[in-house]
Amino acid sequence: MGIEIRNVRVICTAPEGVNLVTVKIETNEPELYGVGCATFTHRYLAVVSVIEEYLRPFLIGKDPANIEDLWQSIMGMSYWRNGPVLNNALAGVDMALWDIKGKMAGMPLYQLFGGKCRSGIPCYTHAEGATVEQTLERVEALRERGYRKIRVQVGGYGGKNPNLHKPENPFPGAYFDPKAYMKNVLKLMEKLRMTYGDTLDFCHDSHERLSPIDAVNFAKELEQYNLLFLEDALPPEQVEWFRVIRQQTATPLAMGELFNNPHEWRTIVSERLIDYIRVHVSQIGGITPARKLVAFCDAYGVRTAWHGPVDMTPIGHAVNAHLDISSPNLGVQEWADSFTGLYPTLNGPLMQEMFPGMPESRDGYLYLNDRPGIGVDIDEELAKKYPCTESLVSWDWMLARLPDGTAVRP
Amino acid sequence: MGIEIRNVRVICTAPEGVNLVTVKIETNEPELYGVGCATFTHRYLAVVSVIEEYLRPFLIGKDPANIEDLWQSIMGMSYWRNGPVLNNALAGVDMALWDIKGKMAGMPLYQLFGGKCRSGIPCYTHAEGATVEQTLERVEALRERGYRKIRVQVGGYGGKNPNLHKPENPFPGAYFDPKAYMKNVLKLMEKLRMTYGDTLDFCHDSHERLSPIDAVNFAKELEQYNLLFLEDALPPEQVEWFRVIRQQTATPLAMGELFNNPHEWRTIVSERLIDYIRVHVSQIGGITPARKLVAFCDAYGVRTAWHGPVDMTPIGHAVNAHLDISSPNLGVQEWADSFTGLYPTLNGPLMQEMFPGMPESRDGYLYLNDRPGIGVDIDEELAKKYPCTESLVSWDWMLARLPDGTAVRP
Amino acid sequence: MGIEIRNVRVICTAPEGVNLVTVKIETNEPELYGVGCATFTHRYLAVVSVIEEYLRPFLIGKDPANIEDLWQSIMGMSYWRNGPVLNNALAGVDMALWDIKGKMAGMPLYQLFGGKCRSGIPCYTHAEGATVEQTLERVEALRERGYRKIRVQVGGYGGKNPNLHKPENPFPGAYFDPKAYMKNVLKLMEKLRMTYGDTLDFCHDSHERLSPIDAVNFAKELEQYNLLFLEDALPPEQVEWFRVIRQQTATPLAMGELFNNPHEWRTIVSERLIDYIRVHVSQIGGITPARKLVAFCDAYGVRTAWHGPVDMTPIGHAVNAHLDISSPNLGVQEWADSFTGLYPTLNGPLMQEMFPGMPESRDGYLYLNDRPGIGVDIDEELAKKYPCTESLVSWDWMLARLPDGTAVRP
Amino acid sequence: MGIEIRNVRVICTAPEGVNLVTVKIETNEPELYGVGCATFTHRYLAVVSVIEEYLRPFLIGKDPANIEDLWQSIMGMSYWRNGPVLNNALAGVDMALWDIKGKMAGMPLYQLFGGKCRSGIPCYTHAEGATVEQTLERVEALRERGYRKIRVQVGGYGGKNPNLHKPENPFPGAYFDPKAYMKNVLKLMEKLRMTYGDTLDFCHDSHERLSPIDAVNFAKELEQYNLLFLEDALPPEQVEWFRVIRQQTATPLAMGELFNNPHEWRTIVSERLIDYIRVHVSQIGGITPARKLVAFCDAYGVRTAWHGPVDMTPIGHAVNAHLDISSPNLGVQEWADSFTGLYPTLNGPLMQEMFPGMPESRDGYLYLNDRPGIGVDIDEELAKKYPCTESLVSWDWMLARLPDGTAVRP
Repeated sequence: MGIEIRNVRVICTAPEGVNLVTVKIETNEPELYGVGCATFTHRYLAVVSVIEEYLRPFLIGKDPANIEDLWQSIMGMSYWRNGPVLNNALAGVDMALWDIKGKMAGMPLYQLFGGKCRSGIPCYTHAEGATVEQTLERVEALRERGYRKIRVQVGGYGGKNPNLHKPENPFPGAYFDPKAYMKNVLKLMEKLRMTYGDTLDFCHDSHERLSPIDAVNFAKELEQYNLLFLEDALPPEQVEWFRVIRQQTATPLAMGELFNNPHEWRTIVSERLIDYIRVHVSQIGGITPARKLVAFCDAYGVRTAWHGPVDMTPIGHAVNAHLDISSPNLGVQEWADSFTGLYPTLNGPLMQEMFPGMPESRDGYLYLNDRPGIGVDIDEELAKKYPCTESLVSWDWMLARLPDGTAVRP
Repeated sequence: MGIEIRNVRVICTAPEGVNLVTVKIETNEPELYGVGCATFTHRYLAVVSVIEEYLRPFLIGKDPANIEDLWQSIMGMSYWRNGPVLNNALAGVDMALWDIKGKMAGMPLYQLFGGKCRSGIPCYTHAEGATVEQTLERVEALRERGYRKIRVQVGGYGGKNPNLHKPENPFPGAYFDPKAYMKNVLKLMEKLRMTYGDTLDFCHDSHERLSPIDAVNFAKELEQYNLLFLEDALPPEQVEWFRVIRQQTATPLAMGELFNNPHEWRTIVSERLIDYIRVHVSQIGGITPARKLVAFCDAYGVRTAWHGPVDMTPIGHAVNAHLDISSPNLGVQEWADSFTGLYPTLNGPLMQEMFPGMPESRDGYLYLNDRPGIGVDIDEELAKKYPCTESLVSWDWMLARLPDGTAVRP
Repeated sequence: MGIEIRNVRVICTAPEGVNLVTVKIETNEPELYGVGCATFTHRYLAVVSVIEEYLRPFLIGKDPANIEDLWQSIMGMSYWRNGPVLNNALAGVDMALWDIKGKMAGMPLYQLFGGKCRSGIPCYTHAEGATVEQTLERVEALRERGYRKIRVQVGGYGGKNPNLHKPENPFPGAYFDPKAYMKNVLKLMEKLRMTYGDTLDFCHDSHERLSPIDAVNFAKELEQYNLLFLEDALPPEQVEWFRVIRQQTATPLAMGELFNNPHEWRTIVSERLIDYIRVHVSQIGGITPARKLVAFCDAYGVRTAWHGPVDMTPIGHAVNAHLDISSPNLGVQEWADSFTGLYPTLNGPLMQEMFPGMPESRDGYLYLNDRPGIGVDIDEELAKKYPCTESLVSWDWMLARLPDGTAVRP
Repeated sequence: MGIEIRNVRVICTAPEGVNLVTVKIETNEPELYGVGCATFTHRYLAVVSVIEEYLRPFLIGKDPANIEDLWQSIMGMSYWRNGPVLNNALAGVDMALWDIKGKMAGMPLYQLFGGKCRSGIPCYTHAEGATVEQTLERVEALRERGYRKIRVQVGGYGGKNPNLHKPENPFPGAYFDPKAYMKNVLKLMEKLRMTYGDTLDFCHDSHERLSPIDAVNFAKELEQYNLLFLEDALPPEQVEWFRVIRQQTATPLAMGELFNNPHEWRTIVSERLIDYIRVHVSQIGGITPARKLVAFCDAYGVRTAWHGPVDMTPIGHAVNAHLDISSPNLGVQEWADSFTGLYPTLNGPLMQEMFPGMPESRDGYLYLNDRPGIGVDIDEELAKKYPCTESLVSWDWMLARLPDGTAVRP
C-alpha cells in the first residue's frame, strides 16, 4: 500500500503574543508527516475553519505525492478563490506536502528546487524608532551585529507619530499625516547618509498609505539617498500608478506583501515597473505558486524579496529561505531579527525551542540547516502552553486616519 | 443619544439543502435592525467565523449611518483583503447597514439610489437538461410561463455528460470533454433556433472550463445563433484572453460571477471587452462597491447582469433588484425560478415563508415590494428548523477532469 | 566527502541512421551517474566539441547537486550564448544532473516536479503520405492502434511534392510551391473531415516555409476544419506576424521548436498570440529553463506541446514526459510512433534495447516507468555498434526552393 | 568554366595567447581565395567543427559569387540557428566570399558598398587601470598619442576589484560588488572631467553585470559627465529595460556585442532605445547581415559602433572598417590599440606580420589600405608557429560572483 494522508491538523499558538497557525499533515507511515505555515494572523480563525471543515475531509486518503494536482483541486473546489483566507489555508497544506516530499527524498527542499545558487542569503532587518535619534541608535546596534542592509522607519509604519497633533474625530484608527510622515523620513535618511555614507544599504516601507501622487513625489525625493528599495509605495488596488512613479524616478521599488491574486502582480512585473517582488508566500497559496512566480519574475529581470514579518511561523521563514537559496533571481530576504528586542516572535529563545530548526542569521546572512524537507518542526506540547488570544488583533494599528478623519487603508 | 450598533448576529440555515448565511445587525432601537446576505456556500463557516470573531467586536457601538467609512475600515483592517471569505462577511454587514438606512428613511433602497428608472426588471431563467430534448421541453415550459430570456444548458454546467466514456483515473472530479460539450451545445442552439426562430433570447454559461482557444472558437461558432450572451467563457485569471475573443466575434459576452478583486474587472470593462458585468454582489463586498461598479461600467457602456444563483438568500436577490431598478445601465437579471422544480431554494414556498418579502417574477419581469430598506426579512424560528449541513459541499461537481485526468478549475 | 563529478562523457550513436548524442555524468559514487540528451543532429559534432572541450573540464570536481548554479555558470561563461549548439551541450549536462538528483532522492523526476497531475499523457503521432490517399491510409492505421490525435502531412513537411513540376534551377534544395502545398493540405483536411467527422483531432505542421501573408490565409482557410493546432506557421525571426494571424482567425496555433532565445517566445506568449508552446527542450538548455517556461506560459494560459521528433534520444522523450505528467498546463505531447514504420528511431525494438526504460504509448496516451531520475538508461556496448555517420545530414531536405529558385528557410 | 569553390580551410592560431580562427576559401583559380574571421574564442573548437564538418562539404563546388543565396542556405540548413557557434562559422565563410568578390572586382570592399563617405574612421581606444590613478595615467598616454575618444575602466570590466573583501564561498568566479564598482567609476569620471574638462570623449562599459535598476541609477548618475556612451548596461535577455533607462536619463547608450538574434536588436532599435548598435559582426553572421543592420539602424537614426575587441583577427577589424568608411550612420569604431601594452593581439608587430594589411590608426582615426577585397591576408606559416591552447579559456574572468556568491552572467 502506498503512502496516504491520514489526518490534517491545525496547531494554533501565540508564543509571543502573536497568533500563529501551523498545519500538520500526517500519513499512514507513523514517522512521516509534514508541517506548513498558514498564518493570516488578522483572521486566523477563518483560516482554521477552512482547513478543518473543508480541506481536511478532502485530503484524507489522498496520495501526498501529487502536490500540483492537489493544489489545483483545492484552488478550484471553493469556486471563488484567490483570497487571503483560502490562500493561507491552501498554503499551509501545500508547504506540509512539500515537507513530506522532501522527507521522502531525504533532501532539504532547496535540493529539490535545483540546489544552492549562493553561499548565504543576504537579508535585511528592521530599525524603527519613535524619533529619528531612536532609529539611528537601533541602526547602529544592528550594524555592530553585522547587518549591512537595514529597513528604517520612524514613528511607526507609514509614519504614525504620537508627537504630532491629533485632531478630534469620532473615527477609530491611528493618526497619519502624510506631509509630516514624508518630512520625517526624509530627515531620517539625511541623517543616516551623513552618519554612514554609503557603507550601509537602507530600505523603507511606506505601507501603502500615501496618496498616489504623494508616493510619486516621495519616491522622487528619496532618490538622492540611494535606497536599496522603497517598499509598498501604493495600495494593491492601484499598482498601475507605478507607471507614473517609474517615469519620474530611479528609486528602486519593492511591492507585493498584500497580493493575493495574479492580476495584482502580472502587469507590474511584465511591464518591469518594480524591481523586487515581495509577496507573502502563504498569501498567494504556498510553495507551488511561489516557485512559478520566481520563474515569472526572472523572465522579466525582477528579483525576489519575500515578505518575512513577525506574524509568520519559523516554518514559513524556512520556506522563504529554501526559495531564496535556490532562486537565481533572489534579491534579498526580510528578517526581523529578535535581537533588537522589538520582535521576540521571530527568533527569540522561546521560538527556537518551539520551532526547532529555524534558519539562523549571522553577519547579515541567513543560513538553513540541512535536514530533509523544510527542516523545521513544531513542539506541540510547548505550543499548547501558549494559546491564541481570541480577541481582535490590533486593527487600530492597521487602520489609519488622515488629519481630516478619512480612513486610509494599508 | 444617537443610533448605535448593539449586536451583529449570523443566521445560518439550509431550507432546501443549500447552506445560506444571513447577517442581522441590531441597534439600540428595539425595532431597528438590518439584514444582509453573506452566503459563500462552499466555505460558509469561514465567513461566519470572520463576522462573529472579527467584525462583530469592531462594529458594536458604532454608528450604523456611516456605511462608507465602516466599509473602508473593515476592508483595510484585515490588512490582506479582496478575497471571497472576507468580502462576503463585509457584504453581509454592508447590506444590513443599507437596510437600516432605508428603514430610517422610511424608503425602499432603490429610492435612496435615485429612484426607479424602469417599470420592471427583465430577467432570464434557466433551462437545463441531460439531453437536448430535455432542455427543449423545459424551455417550452418556461416560455409558457412568460419567460422570453432563457439560459440553456445541456449536460450540466460546462457540459458534464455521464454518457461519455470515462477513462480510469485515480483523480476525483466530474468528467469534462470539451469537444463533446461544445458539440452538444451547438446542436442545442441549432434546435432552439429552428424551433423558436428569434422569438426568444437565449444565453449560455460555459462556466470557465474551456481552454482559451476553445473559448474563442466556441464564441465564434455561437455567433450565428444571436445569443443574449455567452457567459463565463474564461476563468478569472485569464480575462485578458477576452481581447482575442473580441477580435474574432461579435457574440455578446458576460463575465464576472467569480470576481473578487477590482483588477479582475477593471481592464476588461475599460477596454470594452465584455458587454455585461455579472459579479456576485456579496463576493465583491456588498452594495457599496456594487453601486460604484454600476457607475464605472456605465462610463464604458457596459451593462449589469448580476449573478443570481440558488446559493444566495432572497435578501441578496432583493439587493440585486434594488440595483437593477435604479441603474440606467441595467442589462438583465438572472432569476433561477423555482417553477422548473430544479431550484427550490430560490423562490419556492418554504423560501417565501422563511424570507418574507422576496421579489416576484411575472411574465419574465421581476418586481420588488415597497417596504423600507431591502424589504425582505428572515423568520429566525423557521430558519432554525433547517440547520446547515456541516459536510463538505459538492466539490466533486465543482472540480472537473479532462479525459486525461487533468483538473479543470471553474 | 560529498558527491562530486568525476567525469563527463559523450556517447554518440546512430541506431537507426540518425545521429544521437547522449551525455553521461559520472560521480565519485560508482553506481551514481546521470544521462541527458544533447542531440542537435544537424550539427552534433559541434555539440560534442563543446561538452568535451569546455564543459567537461569545468564540471569535474563540482557538486552535482547545485544544478541551477551550474546552469547559470555555464550559460554565462561562454559570453555569447542562447544558441543551438551551446544550449544543447548545456541541456545534456542539465538533464544528467537532474537524473542524478532524482536517483539521489530515489524518485522519478516528476515527483520532484510536484507529482502527477493527470493519469496519462495525451499524445499525437504522425501520418504522412506522398498523396492524400496515402495519408488517409496511415491515419486509419493509427486510429486502429488507438490514436485519436494525429498530425497529418501530405508531400513532406511544408508540402514537398515530387509530382509537381520542378523547374530547372542551379540551386540545391527541395522544391516547394506554396500554392500547391496549401491546396493539397486543404484537400487532405476536407477528405479527413468527410471520412472521420469530428471523431479525431488533427494537427498540421507547415514548417515555417510560408510567406507571412500566405500563413495568414492558410490559417484562416483551415479554421473550418477545427484543427487541434496549426504548427510553425511562421519562421522564428517573424513571430510578431502572429499578431496578424490572431486578428483574423481562431485556428489554434502552436509554435516554438526552433526557439533558442527567450526573446523568441516572451512576446508571443505574453501577448497570448499562440496556444501551444512547442520548444525542443534541449534547444533551450534543458529541464531547468523548461520548467521556468512551463510556469511562464501557465501565467498566460498557454499550454505545452514539447517537440518530440525522431532526432532525439529516448532520454529526451522521457524528459518531455516527466514535464508533461507534472505540468498543470500540459496541452499534448508529440510522439512519432515507430509503429508506422516511418520512424524506427523513436521506439522500435533496437531503440528499446539500447535505451532501456523509454516511455510507452498505449491507446494514444504515453506512460512513464517509475524508476528514480529520468528512468531511461543507455546500453553503451550496443551503442558502439552503431557509430554515427560523419557525413552531412540531409540538408537538401531542410532547405527548400520556391518555384523561382529562392531559398526558403524552415 | 566558371569560378567555383575548391576548398574551405580553417586556420587556428594564438599569436599573443588568444585563440583566433580564420576561414580561407579557395577556388579553382589558383590565386583567387578569400579570408574571413570566425573567432568565437571561448568556444572556438565548436566553430571549427561546424566549418570543417558541415559547411565545407556543402560549399565545395558552389559558385562563390552567390553570397546572399549561400548565406540564406547555410542559415537555414542547420534548422536551428541564430546562435554564436553557427553564426561565427557562417560569418567566416561570408567574409571570405566577400573578400573573393572584392578581389574579382579589383576593388576594396568599401567600394562595392557604395564608396567612402568620410576621410577617416573616428575610433576610441581603451584605458584601464586597477585604480583611478592608473587609469588616469593611461588616459594621458593615449591622449598624447592623439586619441580623443577613450573608453575608461577601473578595476576590470564590470568592476572586479581585488582589493575588496571576498567572502568565503564554494563557487568559482571573479568577485563583483555592484556598489563598489559604481562608486569607483563615478569617482573616475569626476577626476577625468576635472582633469580634462570636455576636451576628451569618454565612454564606459559596464559589461552587462548590473541589476536592471542599478543600471538605471548608474546611467542617471553618469549623465552629468557627458559620456560618449554607456555601453552594455543590460544583459541581452533584458534589453526591454532600456525603456526604463531611457525614460530617466539622456546618457547615450550603446549595446549589442552579445547579440546573436534579430529579436535582440529589433525592438530596441525601432523604439529608439539605444544610440549605438555595437554588434560583433561575426556573431551575427558576417558582412551580409551587418550591412542590412546598418540600413535598419539608419532608418531609426541609430549609429554603428561595431565591437572591436582583442579576440578577433585583423581580418575582422578590417571588415569593421570597410563598413565604417561606407556607412552614412557610422558613430565610432572601437580600436583596442596595442600601444598601451595591454592588448598586444590587436595591432602589435607580430600581428602585423601575421596579418599583413591590417588597418592603421593615426591621431584617433583608423585608415584602411586600398587592396582589393578585405585587404588583409594571413601568413599561414607564421600562424602555425603559434598553435592554439586547447584548454578552457578564462571562464573565471567571465563569470562573476556577487558578495553573497550568486553567479552574475555578463
